[in-house]
Amino acid sequence: MRILGIDPGSRKAGFAIIECVGRKIHYVASGPLKFDQIEDYKERLHVIYNVSVEIIKKYSPQEIALESLIYVKNPTSLMKLAQARGAMIAAFGQTHNKRIFEYSPNLVKSTVTGHGHATKESMQKGLGLIFGKLDITSFDESDALGVAACHAFHRTSKLTEARL
Amino acid sequence: MRILGIDPGSRKAGFAIIECVGRKIHYVASGPLKFDQIEDYKERLHVIYNVSVEIIKKYSPQEIALESLIYVKNPTSLMKLAQARGAMIAAFGQTHNKRIFEYSPNLVKSTVTGHGHATKESMQKGLGLIFGKLDITSFDESDALGVAACHAFHRTSKLTEARL
Repeated sequence: MRILGIDPGSRKAGFAIIECVGRKIHYVASGPLKFDQIEDYKERLHVIYNVSVEIIKKYSPQEIALESLIYVKNPTSLMKLAQARGAMIAAFGQTHNKRIFEYSPNLVKSTVTGHGHATKESMQKGLGLIFGKLDITSFDESDALGVAACHAFHRTSKLTEARL
Repeated sequence: MRILGIDPGSRKAGFAIIECVGRKIHYVASGPLKFDQIEDYKERLHVIYNVSVEIIKKYSPQEIALESLIYVKNPTSLMKLAQARGAMIAAFGQTHNKRIFEYSPNLVKSTVTGHGHATKESMQKGLGLIFGKLDITSFDESDALGVAACHAFHRTSKLTEARL
């Protein structure tokens, strides 16, 4: 069972692929996604859509986990993030309509580190304990890996919920 | 020269197609777009994307005009609208990357009626004066026609701006 974790963003984002074999989870791949060289935000949305489709094609995940949208104070940032998220979900919807799951940043942090308000650095340490030594430097990448791990731990209850 | 006007939305939206021949503009088609029967918002974003692609394929517009995103007070509504807009722009980006234009609701209203704070009803009257008698009942449809008309009147200066 292959999971894609996504940390959505308009100028930079991250993705991570993990595999669940029985009760064990393994790291497969991850990467930062950089869109900030594209000045026009409309063109950026188009590229975000296409990159999302490419990731699905390349890694063929069965399920996708996203950080749920939190209220950013600045309405302009909120709008940009929400637009980017809309383009990504539209792309994933082409193949994974029913298998996109969302987790709050707090649940991701508490699942990985035991603390809902963990720092980015302790997230990376927590991920090291789960997956072994990782060569991840960007926080977008570790956030994406965190949400993928969070889904691996919570997916059984999420799927049961969906069936009720 | 064919223009597509769009009033974006998450649960309901509108589209309008007009044609510019010299200095004259003609109504071609318009319609409300309803997505509110789809409960899951992720599935809705996927449908919004597909419907946007279908409109482009059916009417082959050369340019697209959208109402720019205004600050809605309720952050949840703002997020939903922005996500829907992201899915639409990602779809239009497949073919019209460089030819998507945005106009503020105030400029649309003042172009069509002479007043930046015109009511939805006076917008419909103003559109009747421009296009002749129209059989349009939904405000989403008239807003879409309004932004298409606004682009027809302002496109020359917008295109000059873009070249500077």
